[in-house]
Amino acid sequence: MLNVLTLEEAQNFVLKIAKKHGFLAESVPLESVSGRVLAKSIAADADLPAFDRSAVDGFAVLSRDTFGASAALPSLLRLAGEVKMGERAGFALGAGTCAAVWTGGELPQGADAMVMLEEAETLPGGLVAVEAAAVPGRHVVFRGDDVRRGEPLLPAGRRLSARDVGLLAALGVAEAPVSARPRVGVLSTGDELIDPGETPAGAQIRDLNGPMLTAACEEAGADARFFGRVPDDETALKRAMREAAERCDLLLLSGGSSAGAKDAAARCLEALGRVFFHGLALKPGKPTLAGMTDGTLTIGLPGHPAAAYLVFHALVRPVIAAMAGEELRETIVPAALTQAVPSNHGREELMPVRLKGAEAEPLFIKSGLVRPLTRADGYIRIPRDAEGLPSGARVDVILF
Amino acid sequence: MLNVLTLEEAQNFVLKIAKKHGFLAESVPLESVSGRVLAKSIAADADLPAFDRSAVDGFAVLSRDTFGASAALPSLLRLAGEVKMGERAGFALGAGTCAAVWTGGELPQGADAMVMLEEAETLPGGLVAVEAAAVPGRHVVFRGDDVRRGEPLLPAGRRLSARDVGLLAALGVAEAPVSARPRVGVLSTGDELIDPGETPAGAQIRDLNGPMLTAACEEAGADARFFGRVPDDETALKRAMREAAERCDLLLLSGGSSAGAKDAAARCLEALGRVFFHGLALKPGKPTLAGMTDGTLTIGLPGHPAAAYLVFHALVRPVIAAMAGEELRETIVPAALTQAVPSNHGREELMPVRLKGAEAEPLFIKSGLVRPLTRADGYIRIPRDAEGLPSGARVDVILF
Repeated sequence: MLNVLTLEEAQNFVLKIAKKHGFLAESVPLESVSGRVLAKSIAADADLPAFDRSAVDGFAVLSRDTFGASAALPSLLRLAGEVKMGERAGFALGAGTCAAVWTGGELPQGADAMVMLEEAETLPGGLVAVEAAAVPGRHVVFRGDDVRRGEPLLPAGRRLSARDVGLLAALGVAEAPVSARPRVGVLSTGDELIDPGETPAGAQIRDLNGPMLTAACEEAGADARFFGRVPDDETALKRAMREAAERCDLLLLSGGSSAGAKDAAARCLEALGRVFFHGLALKPGKPTLAGMTDGTLTIGLPGHPAAAYLVFHALVRPVIAAMAGEELRETIVPAALTQAVPSNHGREELMPVRLKGAEAEPLFIKSGLVRPLTRADGYIRIPRDAEGLPSGARVDVILF
Repeated sequence: MLNVLTLEEAQNFVLKIAKKHGFLAESVPLESVSGRVLAKSIAADADLPAFDRSAVDGFAVLSRDTFGASAALPSLLRLAGEVKMGERAGFALGAGTCAAVWTGGELPQGADAMVMLEEAETLPGGLVAVEAAAVPGRHVVFRGDDVRRGEPLLPAGRRLSARDVGLLAALGVAEAPVSARPRVGVLSTGDELIDPGETPAGAQIRDLNGPMLTAACEEAGADARFFGRVPDDETALKRAMREAAERCDLLLLSGGSSAGAKDAAARCLEALGRVFFHGLALKPGKPTLAGMTDGTLTIGLPGHPAAAYLVFHALVRPVIAAMAGEELRETIVPAALTQAVPSNHGREELMPVRLKGAEAEPLFIKSGLVRPLTRADGYIRIPRDAEGLPSGARVDVILF
């Protein structure tokens, strides 16, 4: 008897194991952290900016000195000095005075606004004619406006972007604590499989799931390794599974998990550890399998490429994220279906779609085909109790 | 006088240069091609599948032999043989016969449908009772269903996904022709800038644009290299620009392009080659600069981090893509604004937004701030002639 779960039950089950797994943190230089997952929250150890800073080239003023100023009736201010780039102001402004400050420079104490160069005229005798009124705070970034000391900024579990790298640099974080990439092993099973570089003889077919899943694991942030192809021989498969499991945090098996005669993967898993579930109430994805190989979480994916990829995205990707401590954030695009999708008969369904502007075209992918999968941008989840979806239905597309 | 262009004019201008640039193609093994850009179109050199293949474990049949079959009134067929995995069928089926075929196996000639194991019963005497009618083509992937020989499959310029890797594997492409990553150099300019690892003295600030832009170039598929920080000294800047330009296909300058007193970058560019434009009718992004350093396309980005990142995304990223021959495809999410955005006074505006379900929150980022940029998911383009956008307006969010 197969122990069949819903996708959500299966997700919760494997995620619980993945979260218990824990991860190692490593310190990585700033130039290499983009795309990695932050292992510890980052807080600011100082205000940013560290001083009141001008956002323009111009004159620092006391805003009240400029109220009512215009080109016809400028305010005349005495130029009290210039703040050189790279130096603190070192002087204060009193009423009726101003100071030249370049973009990024510090405003002298007392100043609370900037007048841009093009709004002022330097006159002989050390005077500046200000031809526009400046409200308090105009063109000024005040100390702490960006970041306040002690404030939590980037949470643990965040996948770092180039913009985050900028913030880390601003905070003086030259090396960031990130989690080690989870090691994921991929094993393809099946007597009929050959290497993509080989020419099929007889009814052999090239193994595409092995390379595809290995690349998908890398995209998901894993340190992925393909352990090769194993025939449907339980002794060979058990040996390969143990050898791979020893070297990884998660083991993926491709193929070999149907309920048919060649169902070696489940028997091997039973022998080497245990089977958590065998079968999902999911279309496609029915022959999905999960268990433990010598204490290493093992997930068996369907042999059909589209099924394998969809179950990878829905079930395995979250596991890889959890093993890195990542807070996974799906990108979801609302769209309208271009055509009806018929009822899915009591199982939740994952339907690949292609986005065309605000519309989503469902791709009915026949079992075993791979090409239509390369046309898909993401997929929709159709609940088990939905009696199909009509053309024009609003759906949420989960992007690949 | 500055030669000011619109964003679209600037995009067209630099894209034309980038497309003329050309690229080298390199042959990369399948396990490393994910994320790379295909340099030549890939066509199929054979049908896929190469033979009529079963999608289930069961019995190959002539569909007409099963018409009308049910559990109550099964069709009795003679078992003519079994197709072993990895072997071609080697025999044909005649009327009234069937053959055992496993998932992925070849259907014998004459068969046009599969009956699943659970819909049939093997009886003594070499008979099989088929308890369900099979329409022609049921559970069968016919030769060429996925891919027909000679059909163009993956176009040149496509950024390869894990799913594409699967298709390449199926086609027997063990090494794929991809374009070399464009070499992009990043130079930060400014007397006030220090290394992120240093502690600011005086009015110094840590250079965040250098690391951020270098990471952003990598994300865009470039082979990026940070050439360091140069003070606002024209001799030093010219030397640094020439040294960097010699080693890259595209040179980015961060800062130093405002129209103020420290506007060294434009003067250096003028001296070393030419200036194409200086200034965009864009908010933010006004001080953007482009030209040639000794024949290397050079783009000067604004010093403010949010402006630098937005102009990078809108102007530089397409250039990197074009230099790799990539057909860039933006991910665009329709959303409704959570609040009004005021008029932008005659310049096109790029407004960063944060997505919340189907809503987009505009982020009004004060010049010089970096933290709000890390909260943004993308940005919207507000045309120069729009008089602001009301709350609830439908917008297209271009994802970062």
